[in-house]
Amino acid sequence: MGGDNAPEAIVAGVVNAIAHNEDLQVTLVGPETVIRPLLPAEGCERITLLHAEEVIHGEDEPLVAIRKKRKATMLVALDLLKAGEVDAAVSAGNTGAFMSGALFYVGRIKGIQRPALAPLLPTMTGSALLIDCGANADCKPEFLLQFGQMGSIYMQKVMGVAQPRVGLLNNGAEEDKGSAMHREAHQLLKASGLRFHGNVEGRDALDGNVDVIVADGFTGNVFLKAAEGVSLFLFALLKEQLGANLKRKLGTALVYDGLRAVKRKLDYTEYGGSLLLGIDGVVVKAHGSSNAKAFESALRQAMDAVRKDVVGSIRQSLEQSLQQDS
Amino acid sequence: MGGDNAPEAIVAGVVNAIAHNEDLQVTLVGPETVIRPLLPAEGCERITLLHAEEVIHGEDEPLVAIRKKRKATMLVALDLLKAGEVDAAVSAGNTGAFMSGALFYVGRIKGIQRPALAPLLPTMTGSALLIDCGANADCKPEFLLQFGQMGSIYMQKVMGVAQPRVGLLNNGAEEDKGSAMHREAHQLLKASGLRFHGNVEGRDALDGNVDVIVADGFTGNVFLKAAEGVSLFLFALLKEQLGANLKRKLGTALVYDGLRAVKRKLDYTEYGGSLLLGIDGVVVKAHGSSNAKAFESALRQAMDAVRKDVVGSIRQSLEQSLQQDS
Repeated sequence: MGGDNAPEAIVAGVVNAIAHNEDLQVTLVGPETVIRPLLPAEGCERITLLHAEEVIHGEDEPLVAIRKKRKATMLVALDLLKAGEVDAAVSAGNTGAFMSGALFYVGRIKGIQRPALAPLLPTMTGSALLIDCGANADCKPEFLLQFGQMGSIYMQKVMGVAQPRVGLLNNGAEEDKGSAMHREAHQLLKASGLRFHGNVEGRDALDGNVDVIVADGFTGNVFLKAAEGVSLFLFALLKEQLGANLKRKLGTALVYDGLRAVKRKLDYTEYGGSLLLGIDGVVVKAHGSSNAKAFESALRQAMDAVRKDVVGSIRQSLEQSLQQDS
Repeated sequence: MGGDNAPEAIVAGVVNAIAHNEDLQVTLVGPETVIRPLLPAEGCERITLLHAEEVIHGEDEPLVAIRKKRKATMLVALDLLKAGEVDAAVSAGNTGAFMSGALFYVGRIKGIQRPALAPLLPTMTGSALLIDCGANADCKPEFLLQFGQMGSIYMQKVMGVAQPRVGLLNNGAEEDKGSAMHREAHQLLKASGLRFHGNVEGRDALDGNVDVIVADGFTGNVFLKAAEGVSLFLFALLKEQLGANLKRKLGTALVYDGLRAVKRKLDYTEYGGSLLLGIDGVVVKAHGSSNAKAFESALRQAMDAVRKDVVGSIRQSLEQSLQQDS
């Protein structure tokens, strides 16, 4: 029931995902009278409908909502995950409520100080994981070290990058750049055994030189939204300019599929979902504006994370580093 | 002697500015044997050449350079400003050294806690001043209040905006968003008597809804560089896609001037210079990659700030608020 296009787009995304993945089973959590009519007559053998009426809305205050609306659809889904009845929970609803719900009702992987929200972003050469993009506005250096560790595991296990290169989003390339927190995080990452590439600036974070962009949640969020904003701005300018006269309109018709390809590649708002890494279970936040296709790709991300056992790998790597420390 | 294209582009920019502005006089500070040959035989009556040999390079450590290279060109220019022999100092050289030099050798306006670097950015509807974009990585809430005050004065005096709208760059629209520092800065701005629009996110900062974007220097820097990076990324993608086949190449020829117009508008790296607001004199940092045209527009910014007495207005507004407090 979460997101701008729920429940229609969510159900459609699930139905498509079921058709494209033979081993997928989905439990849809929502009001039966609303959801049932949206399901097609055939091909729904692997879809279970679990009735829940309460809904957390976008404007609800997260911490209030997760306490007062304990039977809300997204929290019921997280309960299923906690109970081991499902392998992953996916929602396009209120980000703060879904993150807080995951933290309170599913819990952290033991040893993880802060879970982080991690979207994959398009880069010049492929993609990079931005971690954290908004779960933690105030960060300590140790949190950023763990973001680097979790991000590396994700890129290695799920994206098949043998030795992920980790960059720290900062305001300059030199290691003494940034706030005291960033300078300390830099030193921790440098000594971590990760393949640390050093600082990356907003200008070159998307060049393709790093696979993991570590950021405090505040900076990561501003960075991601700046990328979205400039991209929207640019397409608005293009539309204005390319429609300015007949000659340009003719030209636009000839380059139209090229422009669409660029737009698709740069569509930061629709580039799948964000994993909430550090939670003791696979939790994926789909974008609030998800259409059926975007929600299906969020489901695919969840499936990949389950198949490659990202949570187990993070747990294991923490145990190893704890053993080394003692 | 500062910047990627010095001294040729700097001298050319000055010569053009002199030709376009009857009341402009420029003192060029640099090695006479290098600079003299670059000056045209005619039309240089209002250009004075002041010999200085030492140069601070881009890779020099700012605080070391401004002490050890006390006779460097950019510091001599700042000395002229301090002595009242010129009305403004402009450089395309090492940003950190120029800022530190201005702070140590020209000094702050009395009452200003931290000077801030403030570039004008293109927005959907015109332009907005981003303040600070990198002078202060670690900020206190009071600094941000002053950034808002200085930015408002600039937009009012120089850009003619009657009542500039001030936004705080943050990771969400609600007033409780961001780090503790940002929440406190929000409250200070709200109570300041400025026309405070509230928080702006990276996504909507360039929508044209605010005239001043207040940011801590770290976030402002990441924001600005993200905007630059995505813009470069997008033009690289466009180039790749629009040159992919003959049909698209034909179309590109028809829309070429439209694409150029978009590129010009979004060229964050060349959008004039950045004022260093809060220094007790007009100091403009031109972009390191300035060509003659960009340097001329940095000179124009300096002239505007002098003509509209931005420094005097900031001084006056501080005195008023000090009187109100006592």
